[in-house]
Amino acid sequence: MQLSERVIAVVGGDEREREIARLAATTGATVRAYGFPWPDGGIAGVTRAQTAAEALAGADYALFPIPGIAADGTLFAPSSPEPIRPDAALLAGLAPGAKIILGWPDDLLREAAAAHGIELVEYEHDTELMLLRGPAIVEGALQIAIAETDVTIHDAEVGVVGHGNIGRLLARTLVLLGARVHLFARNPVQRADARAAGCVPHPLTGLPERAAGLSMLFSTVPSRIVDEAVLRRLPPASLVMDLAAPPGGIDLDAARALGHRAVWARGLGRRAPVTVGASQWSGVFRRITEIEEKRGSA
Amino acid sequence: MQLSERVIAVVGGDEREREIARLAATTGATVRAYGFPWPDGGIAGVTRAQTAAEALAGADYALFPIPGIAADGTLFAPSSPEPIRPDAALLAGLAPGAKIILGWPDDLLREAAAAHGIELVEYEHDTELMLLRGPAIVEGALQIAIAETDVTIHDAEVGVVGHGNIGRLLARTLVLLGARVHLFARNPVQRADARAAGCVPHPLTGLPERAAGLSMLFSTVPSRIVDEAVLRRLPPASLVMDLAAPPGGIDLDAARALGHRAVWARGLGRRAPVTVGASQWSGVFRRITEIEEKRGSA
Amino acid sequence: MQLSERVIAVVGGDEREREIARLAATTGATVRAYGFPWPDGGIAGVTRAQTAAEALAGADYALFPIPGIAADGTLFAPSSPEPIRPDAALLAGLAPGAKIILGWPDDLLREAAAAHGIELVEYEHDTELMLLRGPAIVEGALQIAIAETDVTIHDAEVGVVGHGNIGRLLARTLVLLGARVHLFARNPVQRADARAAGCVPHPLTGLPERAAGLSMLFSTVPSRIVDEAVLRRLPPASLVMDLAAPPGGIDLDAARALGHRAVWARGLGRRAPVTVGASQWSGVFRRITEIEEKRGSA
Amino acid sequence: MQLSERVIAVVGGDEREREIARLAATTGATVRAYGFPWPDGGIAGVTRAQTAAEALAGADYALFPIPGIAADGTLFAPSSPEPIRPDAALLAGLAPGAKIILGWPDDLLREAAAAHGIELVEYEHDTELMLLRGPAIVEGALQIAIAETDVTIHDAEVGVVGHGNIGRLLARTLVLLGARVHLFARNPVQRADARAAGCVPHPLTGLPERAAGLSMLFSTVPSRIVDEAVLRRLPPASLVMDLAAPPGGIDLDAARALGHRAVWARGLGRRAPVTVGASQWSGVFRRITEIEEKRGSA
Repeated sequence: MQLSERVIAVVGGDEREREIARLAATTGATVRAYGFPWPDGGIAGVTRAQTAAEALAGADYALFPIPGIAADGTLFAPSSPEPIRPDAALLAGLAPGAKIILGWPDDLLREAAAAHGIELVEYEHDTELMLLRGPAIVEGALQIAIAETDVTIHDAEVGVVGHGNIGRLLARTLVLLGARVHLFARNPVQRADARAAGCVPHPLTGLPERAAGLSMLFSTVPSRIVDEAVLRRLPPASLVMDLAAPPGGIDLDAARALGHRAVWARGLGRRAPVTVGASQWSGVFRRITEIEEKRGSA
Repeated sequence: MQLSERVIAVVGGDEREREIARLAATTGATVRAYGFPWPDGGIAGVTRAQTAAEALAGADYALFPIPGIAADGTLFAPSSPEPIRPDAALLAGLAPGAKIILGWPDDLLREAAAAHGIELVEYEHDTELMLLRGPAIVEGALQIAIAETDVTIHDAEVGVVGHGNIGRLLARTLVLLGARVHLFARNPVQRADARAAGCVPHPLTGLPERAAGLSMLFSTVPSRIVDEAVLRRLPPASLVMDLAAPPGGIDLDAARALGHRAVWARGLGRRAPVTVGASQWSGVFRRITEIEEKRGSA
Repeated sequence: MQLSERVIAVVGGDEREREIARLAATTGATVRAYGFPWPDGGIAGVTRAQTAAEALAGADYALFPIPGIAADGTLFAPSSPEPIRPDAALLAGLAPGAKIILGWPDDLLREAAAAHGIELVEYEHDTELMLLRGPAIVEGALQIAIAETDVTIHDAEVGVVGHGNIGRLLARTLVLLGARVHLFARNPVQRADARAAGCVPHPLTGLPERAAGLSMLFSTVPSRIVDEAVLRRLPPASLVMDLAAPPGGIDLDAARALGHRAVWARGLGRRAPVTVGASQWSGVFRRITEIEEKRGSA
Repeated sequence: MQLSERVIAVVGGDEREREIARLAATTGATVRAYGFPWPDGGIAGVTRAQTAAEALAGADYALFPIPGIAADGTLFAPSSPEPIRPDAALLAGLAPGAKIILGWPDDLLREAAAAHGIELVEYEHDTELMLLRGPAIVEGALQIAIAETDVTIHDAEVGVVGHGNIGRLLARTLVLLGARVHLFARNPVQRADARAAGCVPHPLTGLPERAAGLSMLFSTVPSRIVDEAVLRRLPPASLVMDLAAPPGGIDLDAARALGHRAVWARGLGRRAPVTVGASQWSGVFRRITEIEEKRGSA
């Protein structure tokens, strides 16, 4: 895949976008960047733009950050001096037929893109990218579990609710670290999968009864399974961690009121930015490759 | 779940059905058995019937074996003195509202069951039961891989095609045994999953190029990915094993002609009959429980 | 083992001693404690003494903390209002034939004990207790490695120097988490052991050459293997962690001057105090049991 | 290490020696071979001698096979047309200062070597070479355990006696395959090590009590721990496997008389000859390198 005739703009984000921009430049593309923390020594092959508009001008691909659009319609860009609002004016400068690859858009961005004939390629709910971020998320959860408990994961009785993409990775890692992992899932297929991975499977209805024996409880499902009845049965000062997408599945206020160490783990994907940026880029690059192949054959 | 008023017939099968019958009796149900290898000491709580018809007479549940119905319309029952044909005459003796739980039926059985108002509960394509049999299948594959090669799995370069239920379990186990596992899959989600599990992921198109470095190649997909072009590039006397459902995915005749050790691993689920029978029973019992709960609430 | 006629004093320490005292009381012994953080609700079966002398008066066993005696001759007891000095005066109150079980003594304590006919049972260099603390130490190292790097352990190239008790546990855990672990050891037996555990073994002389490819380097040997020449070859901002006993094996000042994240991991055994306290107690209890059995048979 | 001026003779053995000879030739040495199964296509760089004497004539290094000398004083060489007796006459042809690298000698060979000033380098009791063979031995044990039982290793209750080099590797591998491993050892350091590796540790005295719950029992110690009392308590038709050096540690006749599947696993190191030959060669080559370096510096 030769991208030497293409212009890629990386706008907004954090240290992950730094790695994405660096890797984008290794394809031979022209890469312009704005709105993420710029390293002292610069980034080989990447031009630092002075404004978002300058970065996007004439770009064939605009890469917007993973966490997507905030409620106020601006990009996630904590290190940017001013908010970056991807409105019609900003998108007007993109090349004809440009694509925006991003976590997820809001309605305004959808309208602005449609007005300019720009395709949006979303990956927030993309299982591939979630799995590529998976090890970073799991290791972030391990870091917290180690820091916030008085016991080792090794030899601990641990509960995990849900055996989807993240629950499965987390449960398997805890098993390898020597925990006895009780996996709670409604779906018998997930339970059979958990059993094969070395967990002790239980239906969700088994959670209240088992809670008293657990010293850590991780929830990866977005519904309220870990409710106050469960929290009351956990041993005092247990760790409860919510890894589900918002609005999460654990009543963290109730957990804290009961004396537990309650952690909202949203954002763990932001750690290990070099690894995660590289994983993310591998997924983005596959999409660009597919788009270019279609163009080539069209 | 109290099954003391129910009659369960276990008809046909092999050592797995022996364990299924034994466990069925622990529920308090009346259990009658016919057509699988009978142990010298008998089975606690299980009555040995003299004919299939005697076993099935008045039964609320008939459990037929996993491999289902043969091409000639008889049950899998290699130790039975005569073929067991589940025709309308045989089914006529079942209790009203009886259920047959089995691998899969053929058209004749479907018709016979429909004629008597008997529901068929199939599990051949059931992911839960496949996963419950998974460790037995994987260990069977390990046994063959150890027996048929001049190298250890530890430190070997190994290829696995497909990252579905069995491919995923097999690949993970090979990783834990110290192999460097190259996982070939068309689906990028499967590749991302394999990467998180410690494999080196490749698209299917990467297989011919990689083949020369592999000393074992396992295929778990039912299409002809491991074709002669791939087989020619494998090192001499490699192990190639086909774990896919019939018709399989490897040209085993071509593999043998090229001097490879080619293994058709269909039937590995028949090993470890105590574990597999128990797993199978846990899945069958869940179905019976659900049926009884519906009856209770109806 | 019935200890109901024995008095055990737990003096000094931290949260680990809390767990040790709690478990000591479950044997039926009389347990008195002083000098570690006292929990709000007290400890079932343990009497809180007002002074170290009160705790020790008439005790058959004095349990002193793991980190042993400081340079100024006092026990490790950061939460004690005043220093605790185990001098002849303090030891005078122990029961005849008493034993002191502790990390390690200094000369003054040795003399004081000898003067009173008290046996010292040391465990600082005890391999059993080191291994029992091992998982806590390894998990502490993982926590730091996750927190202090921009990459995941999964898929990282990691170096470990030494394959002794801690190096071996650490290397194996990193392998299970998906790292490619390069194990550097002088001893070919350790290298063969590391290879069997899934590491890539190298002699120590291979470290300078390999350093440029590593993103984390852990040293578990007390000699200066990771010297400035090695540190200069590591990629910028690498994590270097010293897990060896004092004086350690890495020039941490040089590492920091070169821009690396340099961590001195002594004291990791203090984390997970409930697990470590329980492990420690299992080792202490075995020693007490052996002493009592000798007494009984004498 | 340049061995181009050296002559290496590989005499006796099996498929492992074939791989050793092949790798020896890659060093540039002159390699002559006799007494192991010769492959149809020959071995690149290796000359096939017509007699043992021809192979050894003028050799600087004689490599004799792993299993050493039989009771009748001949080398292990099952494919040799006649017995190979390393007597003084045969050794007389070696180069001055030659070394014989071998499993272990008998008294006659010792005397013959001494008479000619030839140094014997033994590795039978060499921990490094044992560990290098370790994965092959463990995988051989897995193969038998899978073939000879009605249960999967996954989820089985398994006993391992001894946590030395092979016991440790075996126990860890069984843990990774999902077994619940009960590790029985006299030495508390071994028990603490086993616990850290995910086993449930027990003293040897705990074996009789635990035996009733085990479906497989592996012994790796050369003393009679698994005696008839233990064998009687195992469930009917358990697998008992003896992995210890002769005379082994299990009363296999008693085990068979009690209806167990009793396996004497001596010789498992003979499987995976390519991997084991290569491992063995890496250890042999290290020894040759050390000898040459001494020569060079002398």
